[in-house]
Amino acid sequence: MYFASDNAGPVHPNVMAALEAANDHYAMPYGADRINQEVVKRIRQMFDAPEAAVYLVATGTAANSLALATLSNPWETVFCSPMAHIHEDECNAPEFYMGGGKLTLVPAMNAKMTPDALRASIAKEESRGVHGPQRGPVSITQVTERGTVYSISEIRALTAVAKEYDLPVHLDGARFTNAMVSLGCSPADMTWRAGVDAVSFGGTKNGLMGVEAVIFFDPKHAWEFELRRKRGAHLFSKHRYLSAQMMAYLANDLWVELANSANTNARRLAMGLRQSEHVRFEFETEANIVFASFPRSAHKRLQDAGALYYVWNDDLEGEDPDEMLMARMVCDWSISDARIDRFVGLVKG
Amino acid sequence: MYFASDNAGPVHPNVMAALEAANDHYAMPYGADRINQEVVKRIRQMFDAPEAAVYLVATGTAANSLALATLSNPWETVFCSPMAHIHEDECNAPEFYMGGGKLTLVPAMNAKMTPDALRASIAKEESRGVHGPQRGPVSITQVTERGTVYSISEIRALTAVAKEYDLPVHLDGARFTNAMVSLGCSPADMTWRAGVDAVSFGGTKNGLMGVEAVIFFDPKHAWEFELRRKRGAHLFSKHRYLSAQMMAYLANDLWVELANSANTNARRLAMGLRQSEHVRFEFETEANIVFASFPRSAHKRLQDAGALYYVWNDDLEGEDPDEMLMARMVCDWSISDARIDRFVGLVKG
Amino acid sequence: MYFASDNAGPVHPNVMAALEAANDHYAMPYGADRINQEVVKRIRQMFDAPEAAVYLVATGTAANSLALATLSNPWETVFCSPMAHIHEDECNAPEFYMGGGKLTLVPAMNAKMTPDALRASIAKEESRGVHGPQRGPVSITQVTERGTVYSISEIRALTAVAKEYDLPVHLDGARFTNAMVSLGCSPADMTWRAGVDAVSFGGTKNGLMGVEAVIFFDPKHAWEFELRRKRGAHLFSKHRYLSAQMMAYLANDLWVELANSANTNARRLAMGLRQSEHVRFEFETEANIVFASFPRSAHKRLQDAGALYYVWNDDLEGEDPDEMLMARMVCDWSISDARIDRFVGLVKG
Amino acid sequence: MYFASDNAGPVHPNVMAALEAANDHYAMPYGADRINQEVVKRIRQMFDAPEAAVYLVATGTAANSLALATLSNPWETVFCSPMAHIHEDECNAPEFYMGGGKLTLVPAMNAKMTPDALRASIAKEESRGVHGPQRGPVSITQVTERGTVYSISEIRALTAVAKEYDLPVHLDGARFTNAMVSLGCSPADMTWRAGVDAVSFGGTKNGLMGVEAVIFFDPKHAWEFELRRKRGAHLFSKHRYLSAQMMAYLANDLWVELANSANTNARRLAMGLRQSEHVRFEFETEANIVFASFPRSAHKRLQDAGALYYVWNDDLEGEDPDEMLMARMVCDWSISDARIDRFVGLVKG
Repeated sequence: MYFASDNAGPVHPNVMAALEAANDHYAMPYGADRINQEVVKRIRQMFDAPEAAVYLVATGTAANSLALATLSNPWETVFCSPMAHIHEDECNAPEFYMGGGKLTLVPAMNAKMTPDALRASIAKEESRGVHGPQRGPVSITQVTERGTVYSISEIRALTAVAKEYDLPVHLDGARFTNAMVSLGCSPADMTWRAGVDAVSFGGTKNGLMGVEAVIFFDPKHAWEFELRRKRGAHLFSKHRYLSAQMMAYLANDLWVELANSANTNARRLAMGLRQSEHVRFEFETEANIVFASFPRSAHKRLQDAGALYYVWNDDLEGEDPDEMLMARMVCDWSISDARIDRFVGLVKG
Repeated sequence: MYFASDNAGPVHPNVMAALEAANDHYAMPYGADRINQEVVKRIRQMFDAPEAAVYLVATGTAANSLALATLSNPWETVFCSPMAHIHEDECNAPEFYMGGGKLTLVPAMNAKMTPDALRASIAKEESRGVHGPQRGPVSITQVTERGTVYSISEIRALTAVAKEYDLPVHLDGARFTNAMVSLGCSPADMTWRAGVDAVSFGGTKNGLMGVEAVIFFDPKHAWEFELRRKRGAHLFSKHRYLSAQMMAYLANDLWVELANSANTNARRLAMGLRQSEHVRFEFETEANIVFASFPRSAHKRLQDAGALYYVWNDDLEGEDPDEMLMARMVCDWSISDARIDRFVGLVKG
Repeated sequence: MYFASDNAGPVHPNVMAALEAANDHYAMPYGADRINQEVVKRIRQMFDAPEAAVYLVATGTAANSLALATLSNPWETVFCSPMAHIHEDECNAPEFYMGGGKLTLVPAMNAKMTPDALRASIAKEESRGVHGPQRGPVSITQVTERGTVYSISEIRALTAVAKEYDLPVHLDGARFTNAMVSLGCSPADMTWRAGVDAVSFGGTKNGLMGVEAVIFFDPKHAWEFELRRKRGAHLFSKHRYLSAQMMAYLANDLWVELANSANTNARRLAMGLRQSEHVRFEFETEANIVFASFPRSAHKRLQDAGALYYVWNDDLEGEDPDEMLMARMVCDWSISDARIDRFVGLVKG
Repeated sequence: MYFASDNAGPVHPNVMAALEAANDHYAMPYGADRINQEVVKRIRQMFDAPEAAVYLVATGTAANSLALATLSNPWETVFCSPMAHIHEDECNAPEFYMGGGKLTLVPAMNAKMTPDALRASIAKEESRGVHGPQRGPVSITQVTERGTVYSISEIRALTAVAKEYDLPVHLDGARFTNAMVSLGCSPADMTWRAGVDAVSFGGTKNGLMGVEAVIFFDPKHAWEFELRRKRGAHLFSKHRYLSAQMMAYLANDLWVELANSANTNARRLAMGLRQSEHVRFEFETEANIVFASFPRSAHKRLQDAGALYYVWNDDLEGEDPDEMLMARMVCDWSISDARIDRFVGLVKG
């Protein structure tokens, strides 16, 4: 019963098959492989963005850090939520890639920034001239780190604030597709049509082995990104194996299918938990992450059964069996209904 | 006829099979997978180094840059040959990861530094106190970028100079196994027993999809390396797919078998070329890289037939059909005898 | 009527005289001057720290950034208040010198961190292993950016928290002496005896032209600091002119005398303002900075008379003459009673 | 008898007087002082460059590093001579400020690059695409580190090569004025009219306490430089004392007078030495630095008499009294004829 993260599940069989198919004879290295050309073409089509610059890297942290560094200068600060992955889970990689930049934490309920909070944070950096950090990109995570999803109008409202100050907008889409299917929108609607300039388009958490695309809708960033990627040691020589994964992901809408599965799994989990009177939901379940609190006694049963998930304040050692402890449970595309139901059964007791 | 690099060939079938086998259910992320424990154990055994710190990354540039950064301070300079990959082919990645460090180019014939040249370069940084760059690691490439191989006594002589000055030694082993089988020695003989402190142990150029191990013989570097790897965005969440590749590589001495194949292929190529009176060898063929010069007319025939390899000064457009132009031809494990013979045939005309 | 900052006032005549005296014939460069030896000796005596490493730089930002970089690693985060100069007024210099480090903002009333808030911030970085930023130094500003002064027991309480987690403590003492005379303590009491590891010991805001000392009580940091200072381009060739300023500052307790003057001036200003019913004090006046709010109409009178000081939210253009706007008024050692009284008179109207 | 460097001599009395004059009441901080406006105006006039961006910093390393960082990207390499101060004497400061950039050493006799050598070095970085370092600024030192002076046509020839490749040109003018008076040209002739884009205009080695101007002839670099200077901790709060020094330097052509004195002193030294048959000149004496070799026995006499200067390979402990050892002797504006003559006398024996 693995609910700890969607980064521990298996790779979809289509992707494995594509790797096998790509493993034939020689291919030009460093992104000059034929499959990569197809990937670029396909992503441009999907996003209705025929000029977009599209690149593949192997980790989400690389995608985020390289994208933000490309959009910023070292004396700037990136505006993001306090729960943002770039702040909490990347060991200062964005600051490293930016060359010593800063992150400004915009107060955010449910890990969603509001336009007012964003404007206030941006405005606060206003009057110090050369002394304070200069305003840099706004970074939005979609799906957020609390499992919530920005509506398109919410994204538009945030990018509108950024545009007031002439700041670029990055979207950390490690779970891009989970949000997209949740909203029922197109890739373009959720990005450039809503004012987003660059996207970390995740694949790893949604059935790939380790591939993310970085997309800039303005191709002026292309060459700088290529240099930053190489300098960061993120340009793969045998690039075709990244391309093949991504191509299999996009073919026949596998990406959409997998995200739908993951979201459906999370809904099943949430609905199951909802039937227990001892469960309190902490955030809306809008994609494939469920946050809920339940009594320590239920956690004990889960742990004893070998269930894996995050307990938020980690204090399973306490005494009171009725104390409510918050859990984060992430569903990937592959988890079975049986496992979900067993998990729910253990919570119910 | 692909002789441009050993980074464009296919992945060995055993490795693909291992990826399939690993693609089952869930695995702990970020290096906590069970296969990774086997990899670490196996590499420690192979190197007769039970305490060694062992980590996997996906690119050779990552292995080199992270290893050098871990061994150095930002105000230091790394001693390497002018042909070193870290100098010529990594777009300042070592300088980036070091935080603004420097490389000092030690004069090197055949891409091999001599102890005297190394000592002279190190000594030259001696007397400037706080003003000059401080002496940092020595980095040796084995197989060198000119296809030559340091003998064990040559490595010992270089590390002895480094030890005189209390400097750590890094070995860039992107083609580690090609050198090892060329020398007929053990991994330990070529590394820590010869005074090497850290190794980039390559797999990508020798039949893997994209995996290199970084090995520190002194485990004191372990935690710093882990933080640097994460901060560099080189820690894979689905790490088991790196582990599975490396484990398949090491199992049943596949790594040795593949390097033997590659070296044998290069020898066949060299011997074939040697039969032509119009071919002049530029460096010894000691591993899987052949450097030779032959007339422009022969290059024209090869190009017309679609052969891929590097022409050193790139001037194929010149007039004189007899002018000798230098080629670099790299053989991987998979190239067929037929293709080698055809290439040779085209050179002969 | 200049109350904008203590960094705009004149240099004390003794200091000018010392510069003249030092301007004789040749002196060894780069800190090897004879006067520097006296400075080091004197500071060690003053701090009762015979082993301390002592260095001079020309700006407070250099002192802070170099000290913090020396105490930390690039993957760490520095704990400081949200009003800290290192966060708000140094254009990412600490992040730059740290090589991409981070600052964690500890909630702080009156710009003073509490032990509980500090412990909570440190604890929060606890459980993420390699993923989150690692805990780094704690940086305390004394006098704070809101003019308040930590008592010695308050400093001890903060350093005790840091020691629980084995973190080093830096004290940003741009206004070190103003705090010291306010507390009536010795330099040692306010620093190493209270658990502080490194100090930016300010001179520039207290009558010098541009000199700060950086003091490490553990001399193990000495050589690294020297290299960082040089690499940061902060090592002066004609160092004797830094030494001469600092020596004049320390001689005959001029530093104490000047800070006493500045604090006395601020007290006079505060007492004058206190006589007006229209003035509301925002923070205690414990050193040489006064924060108070008074009606827009009073601000208009001051501005018309050419008074210089900071109006906090800058909105002097509003309509309501009675709206209270917060002012920051800083007194240096040199401002005359007449000017203070005139300023007070204008506030009163 | 101090001939070790021109950075150890006294400050000219006019400069001290200007500091005294500036030490009156309050002045706007951070470069907003009135004197700074005069400095900017004066330098623009002198250089016949009414649009130039002009900034003051306190060290030559700061001037060079900040200028080069402003002209480059972190993935680029700066072309300079192997004897360049930025390479040998700045402890990796340029690499640090560039964010991990590289220096490419262009072979240079007498520390002067030739156009052919420069072109060859630039061309060599040509064909590696994203893999190699990208071409960045060319940095010329004038007066060179071997005391030689580029003629204006030599500078033009180098900048022409840079322009072929669209690379910016930086001039490290720590001894700018010594070169200018040696050539008898105008500041504009030696810089922008000859194709130079940015200048480190030195004052410290020519009679100031510690001030260098950085000049960009294209003002588009202005704001970036201001941010880099602040972020590097090189923006002085009490900036008026930098301005006052520089203004005194430029007033009444003091800068020219001082450089003339220094060059004249060096000429006297060289002519004196030339009378000895035991002295061999290593480089031309074109400004204020003399390189000459003389027997160990002469060095012994000088050392015994307390003369300070650099002995190049430092081996004064050898046995053979007749062995020729190279000395570097630098004359500043203040050294007396008597001291020069005494030095010469000791060499003659």
